Amino acid sequence: MRNLTLLTDFYELTMMNGYYEKGKNDEVAVFDVFFRQNSLITYSIAAGLEQVVDYLENLHFSADDIAYLRGLNTFSDEFLNYLKDFRFTGDVYSVPEGTFVFPGEPILTVHANILQAQLVEAAILNMINHQTLIASKAAKVCYVAKNDKVMEFGLRRAQGPDAGIYGARAAMIAGCSSTSNVLTGKMFGVPVSGTQAHSWIMDFPSELEAFRAYADVYPDGALFLVDTYDTLGSGVPNAIKIFDELVEKGHKPLGIRIDSGDLAYLTKKARKMLDEAGYTYAKICASGDLDERLIASLKGQGACIDMWGVGTKLITSADMPALGGVYKLSAIKQGDNYVPKIKISNNSAKITNPGFKTLYRVYDKDGMAFADLIALYDEVFDQSKPLTLTHPVEKWKKTTFSAGSYSIKRLSVKIIENGKLIDKLPSLKEICAYCEREKSTFWDEYKRIDNPHIYKVDLSDKLCALKESMIEKLRVSK
Amino acid sequence: MRNLTLLTDFYELTMMNGYYEKGKNDEVAVFDVFFRQNSLITYSIAAGLEQVVDYLENLHFSADDIAYLRGLNTFSDEFLNYLKDFRFTGDVYSVPEGTFVFPGEPILTVHANILQAQLVEAAILNMINHQTLIASKAAKVCYVAKNDKVMEFGLRRAQGPDAGIYGARAAMIAGCSSTSNVLTGKMFGVPVSGTQAHSWIMDFPSELEAFRAYADVYPDGALFLVDTYDTLGSGVPNAIKIFDELVEKGHKPLGIRIDSGDLAYLTKKARKMLDEAGYTYAKICASGDLDERLIASLKGQGACIDMWGVGTKLITSADMPALGGVYKLSAIKQGDNYVPKIKISNNSAKITNPGFKTLYRVYDKDGMAFADLIALYDEVFDQSKPLTLTHPVEKWKKTTFSAGSYSIKRLSVKIIENGKLIDKLPSLKEICAYCEREKSTFWDEYKRIDNPHIYKVDLSDKLCALKESMIEKLRVSK
Repeated sequence: MRNLTLLTDFYELTMMNGYYEKGKNDEVAVFDVFFRQNSLITYSIAAGLEQVVDYLENLHFSADDIAYLRGLNTFSDEFLNYLKDFRFTGDVYSVPEGTFVFPGEPILTVHANILQAQLVEAAILNMINHQTLIASKAAKVCYVAKNDKVMEFGLRRAQGPDAGIYGARAAMIAGCSSTSNVLTGKMFGVPVSGTQAHSWIMDFPSELEAFRAYADVYPDGALFLVDTYDTLGSGVPNAIKIFDELVEKGHKPLGIRIDSGDLAYLTKKARKMLDEAGYTYAKICASGDLDERLIASLKGQGACIDMWGVGTKLITSADMPALGGVYKLSAIKQGDNYVPKIKISNNSAKITNPGFKTLYRVYDKDGMAFADLIALYDEVFDQSKPLTLTHPVEKWKKTTFSAGSYSIKRLSVKIIENGKLIDKLPSLKEICAYCEREKSTFWDEYKRIDNPHIYKVDLSDKLCALKESMIEKLRVSK
Repeated sequence: MRNLTLLTDFYELTMMNGYYEKGKNDEVAVFDVFFRQNSLITYSIAAGLEQVVDYLENLHFSADDIAYLRGLNTFSDEFLNYLKDFRFTGDVYSVPEGTFVFPGEPILTVHANILQAQLVEAAILNMINHQTLIASKAAKVCYVAKNDKVMEFGLRRAQGPDAGIYGARAAMIAGCSSTSNVLTGKMFGVPVSGTQAHSWIMDFPSELEAFRAYADVYPDGALFLVDTYDTLGSGVPNAIKIFDELVEKGHKPLGIRIDSGDLAYLTKKARKMLDEAGYTYAKICASGDLDERLIASLKGQGACIDMWGVGTKLITSADMPALGGVYKLSAIKQGDNYVPKIKISNNSAKITNPGFKTLYRVYDKDGMAFADLIALYDEVFDQSKPLTLTHPVEKWKKTTFSAGSYSIKRLSVKIIENGKLIDKLPSLKEICAYCEREKSTFWDEYKRIDNPHIYKVDLSDKLCALKESMIEKLRVSK
């Protein structure tokens, strides 16, 4: 495993050294990861936790790392010596990967010695921001594709190897049926797919010979790329010729792929040609700069596409290439109590929620998600009693559930205690299944791509009162 | 070093197995990496070559990899057996990292056994696309920042660890003065920077105590983050108080950082407060969702900013998060000759340039870049003779240089021969210096961010004639 201990911002290390020098070596702090609302992000699919756990479990400064840091002439010898035995020994709370999460919610909470909690900020944000972003984009693509298969094809356009590897992982969590990335397939046991590129077609003296050669090697894998020279003029007719040869030998052709040109026009024409030749079962796969908007448009136009290969725009989340998740100090432990901390801003959306917190989800009597509730960590809600939810700003907006008409579930659970993973993490296959169940508890109105309904995220009464009193106290008198 | 051999698209492996089964094991092919024009990309800074070389030199299928592939029930036993001793033994030609490159130009050319050349497509594109993209974005940011320092701050928003590590590397190539990413600092020997986060300020009972504590530990590193509670109301006044204490003890304060709010207004007011307190030398560092447009706007407004911390929008190239580079078959070797290959498209911009090619740059008599020339590999140009450049489509556009009024340089050189690196690659510091020299050979008109002048990229007469004859031959009769 790679040593990513130095995958951190330099200021985390200057602050660690500062905390150490100021005798805060035993102070315990609580930090939350959350992201902020914007026009493009109404819901998200949490992802990246497994990589965060691997990173935390492997955290250690090698002799080499320490020698490098010493060379920067910034850190005290005592601190550098302390780093030799440095390990992550704190607690981590998180929602499971595949969970629907919303702006402002603590997705992941680190409860640790402040030096440790500070060091891990940048790497945790990096991993959670990236995979949650790509999972959320993939969820939109898969939502629009409905029951069609979506194949993740983005490796070559991903922002470096990890973006390809873990981006594909995140895309699988959110509903893609396969990835082209073989390393992701191997690492996480997910299906890989792909057939041939233009180079295969161009390597042979003619397109027909290229198709025939491929069919020779893979008689049951005949899905031909038909747009190298002239999609309707040569590609589809040549594919049909080889399909005929395959059928004669007892094989069943799979279909064609079109990677360029006007996909609505070409797929309708190609469908007709295939059907007329008797290949009504042959699938048409489309690829080429697709995203959820283009897929919705093609479906609206009646394009005849059965499978979607989605690359660049999914693997980079092209319309919003960063989630903008942050990691904010929310409390300092003093004895058995937590002193809440808050970051103030003129922009009220940027004021943080103070205190050691947790996250609940409230379901209606049909089991559909109704609202999320951010509460202080020790707050418990008794389902045998009524529950009133209040909008955190517009307080006249209230919903009261009578006992028995709702259920409530704690979403964020302790997964690491004293630096050790409590339970084995789920496999990627299990995460995918969990995410499918999550999807089924949210109305389409929350998931649609245009003007989605905004899901309610409320603060508990106790948290709301705490936040307001802290803001009032910090108000600067003019 | 990580084994990235399976960092490939599945179809590369199905094609390899196909080539193997079809007896093409000894065929040598030539592939070019290039990117296409779009409204956001007029020039680019080539980057990522060092990682491509590392990848190619380390290419091998482990027993584990082969066992995984066997389990996919797609590949023949003979092919899987052949993979055991598989190594990259081909040649690679490339422009040096830090070179200005333009749409359509072969940035990197692989000349290898077709199985090898096919396997490496996705990983090479991934690395070159990513780093070239980020270097190009950073070049724009640094161009607008002029002589101000630009600090790369993007790790937490990068698309995974590699995007943080190699994105920072690419940003340094293109002119950033430092990165916050400590691992990049260690791996490539570049400066790291950063001071403290909001959490440091919030961890202490008051902002003043937080600044004082930091100054105690780093008396010569006093650059304070002033926007945690109220930038002008408390942040700057508290910073000045601690500056006074430091000066009394014989230290020189560095300055302040503002990370939120209206940066034009706040920095002008803060500058005035610092100046009035006698700290005319204190620097103001700004950060927070900056990019080249915002920096240009702030400079236009007279914002008082000396240093720029640029994160999310640089490290993701937010307005264009993928370069769209492709890897296309251009020739197959037969005996001592190269059979040129072309990919046709209705969109003339998508027609590839056939043949085994190279890239030249023509400079005017002042040493400024005038045009690039894509030529066949064996074409040489004699500087003692006149040179005529012809636009590849609008052929009436011609420029003739008389002998002595120009110079011409081959940009793309052989760097790997028979799988072995010919010369040691330059250090990152050397690449940065080379890129600075490159910048000085291009007029500002090519580098400005609005309506930049489009740099000429011509085809040699021989290449142009070859391309036209191949298109004509492949024209489909209706």
